[in-house]
Amino acid sequence: MKERDLIAAIQARASVTESPSLLCGIGDDCAVTRKDDNEVLLYSIDTLVESVHFDRSFHPPELLGKKAVSVNVSDIAAMGGEPRFLLFSLGLPVGFDEKWVLLLSDGVAKACSHYGCTLIGGDTVASPGGVTMSLCVIGEMAAEQVLYRHGARAGDMIYVSGLLGRAAAGLELLKRDMGHVDRFAELYQAHLDPRARVGLGKKLAASGVVHAMMDLSDGLATDLAHLCGRSGLGAVVYQDKLPEDPLLEQAAKLLKQESLPWKISGGEDYELLFTVPSHATKKLQELVAESGDILYPVGTMTTGKEVTLVRDDPSLQDREVPVSFHGFDHFNKG
Amino acid sequence: MKERDLIAAIQARASVTESPSLLCGIGDDCAVTRKDDNEVLLYSIDTLVESVHFDRSFHPPELLGKKAVSVNVSDIAAMGGEPRFLLFSLGLPVGFDEKWVLLLSDGVAKACSHYGCTLIGGDTVASPGGVTMSLCVIGEMAAEQVLYRHGARAGDMIYVSGLLGRAAAGLELLKRDMGHVDRFAELYQAHLDPRARVGLGKKLAASGVVHAMMDLSDGLATDLAHLCGRSGLGAVVYQDKLPEDPLLEQAAKLLKQESLPWKISGGEDYELLFTVPSHATKKLQELVAESGDILYPVGTMTTGKEVTLVRDDPSLQDREVPVSFHGFDHFNKG
Repeated sequence: MKERDLIAAIQARASVTESPSLLCGIGDDCAVTRKDDNEVLLYSIDTLVESVHFDRSFHPPELLGKKAVSVNVSDIAAMGGEPRFLLFSLGLPVGFDEKWVLLLSDGVAKACSHYGCTLIGGDTVASPGGVTMSLCVIGEMAAEQVLYRHGARAGDMIYVSGLLGRAAAGLELLKRDMGHVDRFAELYQAHLDPRARVGLGKKLAASGVVHAMMDLSDGLATDLAHLCGRSGLGAVVYQDKLPEDPLLEQAAKLLKQESLPWKISGGEDYELLFTVPSHATKKLQELVAESGDILYPVGTMTTGKEVTLVRDDPSLQDREVPVSFHGFDHFNKG
Repeated sequence: MKERDLIAAIQARASVTESPSLLCGIGDDCAVTRKDDNEVLLYSIDTLVESVHFDRSFHPPELLGKKAVSVNVSDIAAMGGEPRFLLFSLGLPVGFDEKWVLLLSDGVAKACSHYGCTLIGGDTVASPGGVTMSLCVIGEMAAEQVLYRHGARAGDMIYVSGLLGRAAAGLELLKRDMGHVDRFAELYQAHLDPRARVGLGKKLAASGVVHAMMDLSDGLATDLAHLCGRSGLGAVVYQDKLPEDPLLEQAAKLLKQESLPWKISGGEDYELLFTVPSHATKKLQELVAESGDILYPVGTMTTGKEVTLVRDDPSLQDREVPVSFHGFDHFNKG
């Protein structure tokens, strides 16, 4: 059973109890409930498990604490919201290293401060299987600005908010004990200390031109397939439109592999993935003119049902390949 | 480092970011934030870990799913609130039993339906150390009715809302493979399928006579010590006022042990622990006249700093014993 089938089965059971103030339940980056006439509350929960999501041997505890907050806050950014509060449940093996835990907590506190959200609760439990962290983040935003995964329209241009595959490449280098090669520092950093795109998410939500949005946590192929599924559409992505990244190419060369799999199915970039009508291009450019952010148009929404990758080389026989969900799945690959 | 020291260290770090809408952060059963002029939101997170908090060999999955929700909702009941929404993060070992997971989900759904709260989000992760469940519950209530752990006054009578030690005794019997003895069914049930006291909690909050309240999750000695700590007071508990329970005595006799440790430090009863001025006795009795609930006055709040147990036998040399925090601590006993 794949993760998404399991979630669907749980979701089917969950729908027995309804609530009039629930605007969006399971299936998007956050659940959305009505706060008052103008505002909504956003909720997301995420669990990070040692040896599945992080490796203590090369992940400094303070950066790990920051990352735990960032990946959770990224779900708020994915709706265009503002993070407000955080709950933090920490599982620790018997005989844990106190100094390590305090550094982890420092990281959590620093990230909270960075994002302007307040740690309001939590618990600690014994955890025989290694360190685990469950975080629940609560956000707020104007009701009429919320950006969902659904809402994309055929013909929309698909954008990503930054470089792709850096976290996956950085992780690969760290795993192979190449974490000392200074020139790749930006790649390690992408894995060890990602940032949630809260500011950009808010701007995009306020712009009024975005039809659908989510964050890139499981890789472009998987996440775009989710957005397509919720919007009842397909998508075409062009290899030659994926962001160029000389540093990523250097790492690929060093590791004797292609950079494309990192870009298309490497997870944890925590950039924003969103769709806009083609006439909105100018407005988007104005939006990021001051911040210097670069937005990359990587493809187009279609009336199909698949995510298709069109590769560079026109002589390839299988130039167009279906890539839906060919990203990281927590239980099954492929 | 004990759990409460660790939480204090994390709390100290958390306080760097403040929020004007935060009414109560770490340190009570729930965090409390302002929703609007009249209402507050309540938040609690809890993690249950296999082989620490539950044993799959004797815990039926549907009851385990219900319990995961109940123990979390109990934190909402502890403030006098109404549960509204639930987020559920499930960690599963590789090769998990799908049928087991679906039964667990059925239990979660049934408990949500029972408490009138809606499952609005969650995630699933791989978990090498066994099944883990993190739940975040969101509640609501009238701002002026919230009952905190602080607020108790010296001279207040201390009440518990039901029998004590049943869950601990039931767990002991189940561990010793005595789960087939029918006459102890109520004790097993107390461990396997506890209920959160939402209805009673709401009545107590609305009554206006309760000074401080919390739920009994870690045992009377530990939980009362927390309430004392937050109220800047001490407490005296009288052994002869603890609820009498013939079934508990039978189990103690069978296992050749005393029932007192179960009552005083057995965890997971999920009854309410609260303090009221002595003149409120009649009002309390009226409150439960219809429901048939029995409220037990077990002691008195004092100006001291310790929780003291006064034992039955007046001839005992150490008749008065300090018992603060002599309950279950997740990392250290004693």
